[in-house]
Amino acid sequence: MLVVLRLGHRLGRDERISTHCGLVARALGASSIIYSGDHDSGIIESIKKTAESWGGKFKAEYNESWRQVIKSYKKRGFAIAHLSMYGLPLQKKISALRRKKKMLVIIGSEKVPPEVYDLADFNISVTQQPHSEVAALALLLHEYFRGKELKKQFSKAKLKIIPQERGKKVEKD
Amino acid sequence: MLVVLRLGHRLGRDERISTHCGLVARALGASSIIYSGDHDSGIIESIKKTAESWGGKFKAEYNESWRQVIKSYKKRGFAIAHLSMYGLPLQKKISALRRKKKMLVIIGSEKVPPEVYDLADFNISVTQQPHSEVAALALLLHEYFRGKELKKQFSKAKLKIIPQERGKKVEKD
Repeated sequence: MLVVLRLGHRLGRDERISTHCGLVARALGASSIIYSGDHDSGIIESIKKTAESWGGKFKAEYNESWRQVIKSYKKRGFAIAHLSMYGLPLQKKISALRRKKKMLVIIGSEKVPPEVYDLADFNISVTQQPHSEVAALALLLHEYFRGKELKKQFSKAKLKIIPQERGKKVEKD
Repeated sequence: MLVVLRLGHRLGRDERISTHCGLVARALGASSIIYSGDHDSGIIESIKKTAESWGGKFKAEYNESWRQVIKSYKKRGFAIAHLSMYGLPLQKKISALRRKKKMLVIIGSEKVPPEVYDLADFNISVTQQPHSEVAALALLLHEYFRGKELKKQFSKAKLKIIPQERGKKVEKD
């Protein structure tokens, strides 16, 4: 079970990146995403709508206190992994991460409070280069689930794509 | 050699996602990114600045005609791979892609012209779920380069991160 915590969402500025974080979490096998920072019912609604159409049990919610989220997941036995370009390389820590059956993955936005580095059990970097929390999350999920997430089936989907060499084929239920 | 073509960039709306596409392309081993759609010197400058600080030879440029870009890369022997949720699953086509030593990877934004599906040698989906072109690009690069891109060294870097279990350590040259 893997839950994503998105830190420091800012209304307007982060709308699309934060939405991509939620959609990636869902598509690549996480159970839910929790947003903190500004309260943005728009992105939560949009992810819920996607989940309704495309199936599965993914949940999106808001919690104004990221500190409380981290502490409560710790108490419930979740390992806390924080993605940051300053942490230890993913490829060196992935075996240790895979041994954790319950994990809270934290992704930041512009400024991450230093306390997050201390609360985390793992600070993990996906390359030591500046790029994207969307990509870092995708690669962590892909490695954690060993590529099996690419074949994940979503229950009760109203829309389903039938892969094609060219063009588009969507089945509607 | 792998080049990324970002279709249909829109000023304002796509600024951050398109920037993330460029940074991900650079961090995960592509040689360059070409933007089409609206001309946005801001994102090209910002990627150039990143490359200057963090090293390597990555290039970012603009071309108003994506059609011309595709045709000219085809002529130069590049295979054309288009990322789309409607294509054939990445995990089924990755061996074929790895055999192509020169590749142009196309990532779309909101609406991709049908012609792109026809011009592409491969239409590839990374899951058949809606998510993010940033994540799809990251996973394609990661699979294409077999994870070796995570250890890529960037020449003449002015800034370099020394991975830490906690906190941040940046070396300045």
